[in-house]
Amino acid sequence: MPDISLKGKMMPASPIRKLVPFSEEAKKRGIKVFHLNIGQPDIETPENVREKLRHLDFKVLEYSHSAGTISYRKKLVEYYAKNNISVTTDQMIVTCGGSEAIMFAMNTCLDPGDEIIIPEPFYANYNGFSVTSGIKVVPIDSFIENGFALPPMEAFEKAITPRTKAIMICNPNNPTGYLYSKEELESLKEIVKKHDLFLFADEVYREFVYDGQTHYSVMNLKGIEDNVILLDSISKRYSACGARIGVLISRNKEVISTAMKYAQARLSPPSLGQIVGEEAIDTPPAYFNQVLNEYHLRRKTLVESINKIDGCFCPNPGGAFYAVARLPIDDSDKFCQWMLEKFNYNGETVLLAPATGFYSAKGRGTNEVRLSYVLNVNDIKSAIKCLEEGLKVYPGRK
Amino acid sequence: MPDISLKGKMMPASPIRKLVPFSEEAKKRGIKVFHLNIGQPDIETPENVREKLRHLDFKVLEYSHSAGTISYRKKLVEYYAKNNISVTTDQMIVTCGGSEAIMFAMNTCLDPGDEIIIPEPFYANYNGFSVTSGIKVVPIDSFIENGFALPPMEAFEKAITPRTKAIMICNPNNPTGYLYSKEELESLKEIVKKHDLFLFADEVYREFVYDGQTHYSVMNLKGIEDNVILLDSISKRYSACGARIGVLISRNKEVISTAMKYAQARLSPPSLGQIVGEEAIDTPPAYFNQVLNEYHLRRKTLVESINKIDGCFCPNPGGAFYAVARLPIDDSDKFCQWMLEKFNYNGETVLLAPATGFYSAKGRGTNEVRLSYVLNVNDIKSAIKCLEEGLKVYPGRK
Repeated sequence: MPDISLKGKMMPASPIRKLVPFSEEAKKRGIKVFHLNIGQPDIETPENVREKLRHLDFKVLEYSHSAGTISYRKKLVEYYAKNNISVTTDQMIVTCGGSEAIMFAMNTCLDPGDEIIIPEPFYANYNGFSVTSGIKVVPIDSFIENGFALPPMEAFEKAITPRTKAIMICNPNNPTGYLYSKEELESLKEIVKKHDLFLFADEVYREFVYDGQTHYSVMNLKGIEDNVILLDSISKRYSACGARIGVLISRNKEVISTAMKYAQARLSPPSLGQIVGEEAIDTPPAYFNQVLNEYHLRRKTLVESINKIDGCFCPNPGGAFYAVARLPIDDSDKFCQWMLEKFNYNGETVLLAPATGFYSAKGRGTNEVRLSYVLNVNDIKSAIKCLEEGLKVYPGRK
Repeated sequence: MPDISLKGKMMPASPIRKLVPFSEEAKKRGIKVFHLNIGQPDIETPENVREKLRHLDFKVLEYSHSAGTISYRKKLVEYYAKNNISVTTDQMIVTCGGSEAIMFAMNTCLDPGDEIIIPEPFYANYNGFSVTSGIKVVPIDSFIENGFALPPMEAFEKAITPRTKAIMICNPNNPTGYLYSKEELESLKEIVKKHDLFLFADEVYREFVYDGQTHYSVMNLKGIEDNVILLDSISKRYSACGARIGVLISRNKEVISTAMKYAQARLSPPSLGQIVGEEAIDTPPAYFNQVLNEYHLRRKTLVESINKIDGCFCPNPGGAFYAVARLPIDDSDKFCQWMLEKFNYNGETVLLAPATGFYSAKGRGTNEVRLSYVLNVNDIKSAIKCLEEGLKVYPGRK
């Protein structure tokens, strides 16, 4: 049997999914499992989108333009304009999910062996895409004590080497929910400018911002227009994860023309998903108000209940629908698995994501978990009750 | 401005699309351009598929399982069984088009610097995916004189080095239309076995086989079950290119578990496309009979009319909907561009794909073009008439 590639052997398994088999086992034993591990919202896709699909009228389900249909790109220009981001149809390439946008950005800007600095904890799949591209992730620490704020500029300076080509952020952040301020982004700009690096920004949670704060996009940082690549997706915005529609945006013409070569090689992004994306932009504002109110309430419920538990700490995240909490435990991987294998509270338990999967530094995240507040308030209450009761009897409690 | 990657600079531009701007210009001058350059069929997507989409009933457009929905994979098992290919749901990973299946296969089996042998001319995007993965394509020649039959085994033997990890074929072939015989595949098996290589087979044109011949799948080669990876797509089969649904199939468990790590990193294939794929398998046989009759007639029209032109030669392809023809010209890139820029016959001209884009060896394909017979018979006749008239006056005629 021929050997698979070393790269394949190095590919990390998804930290969010590795506990799923234990969850399946628990369900087989009749236990109800609350899934706070994943980013699949329970929110309905807007009705206008579903209605649009029911009235589809085409003869041939054709390839679209490799950069996406012109009508969808025009609509995206409108969407970004409403969000105070000025872009044109030729500055964007529609992709198969945000995932493909990230891969295009990495392959366009970095060669194997080049380095990308990412504050950690970070979205675990950035690791997978980096291994695929042969590039090296250089993590720098952010800390739960200040809610995972942007690390100080000295930390970035220290991490920069001759192989550094890019810095990547996710704002609002997955997994921490941290919303970077305009001031933080302005300091980041100075580093980017000084070392002439690319700045990749994953802004897929742009709309999910709480407490009257506003989101500031990297696209509005002046003087680094050629350095910035915006990575975006409709998955969470319109609860349309299955559409697999994202976009890569840059004002740097060479970046776009190079990314287009990758886009042309794979022919076209999904055509039906683009119809979803185009229609979704016309979703009435009432939909978002309701969704935002719902998430606001969920976040309050989640964060308050965790902070009431003895020995737990959960900063109040400014955006997205994730939070990272510190628990009084020895090992988050063991704990999360134990909650599924050995524990239930009145026939219920909870599936959490061990934060270790979001750090590359060994030993970090062992007393932290990521919680996605993608369930309704009552389920969140029951889930956190399970967590509280579990912590009381967990043998590895600290 | 930071520099883009060397890899990005090396990425080949799509040979099929590079003449599109000249075609756009010709249209602006009022000239009708027949597109025989692309693989976008004009055939209607089956009515049952379109009807299915109109009755979609879901609340949340969710991610699917990273390997594809279980219901679609079960249906695929049925489809392959009908095609005499025995596989199970855990031997397949549904992908975003055949393109993603190819990338997963390359990243799973080959490391940067490893070599993959491909008979040329070959589907141009294999080059792009190879550059993306950092792997080296080692082309071996096939020739128009015998219709681009599989090269002799000595040619494969000569090309094998310690870095060779895989052989790739496309059957029926794009761009040549050649249908490999069972005997050719059996000889290929011996090489694969002897050197313990992976064998990638792109069989997306499986149904498009003419003259009562039958398609023989690499999945039925005995004794190399762990070496074979089947790459497939619904794009051409059901004229559903925009669905972006393909599949990677292997009986090698390590290949599947490794490819799954790449699949999990990008979360999920398109959900709507999978609904298309699942329904398409129930398309009535009458649809295929009609489509096949149509392509049969188109092929006959195309091949016969080209062979009637003085100095032209076009082998009669056994499958797919492509043909490569030899023309009495100096340079196929120049000629195809000239046909758009300088020529028209009664206000009409034709866009062909220069075959140079399907060869990696310099200087090959300069007197060949690829023609896709994706237009109706009348349009094909008009298009070939343009070719005939163009050849009469082309200044670089040989």
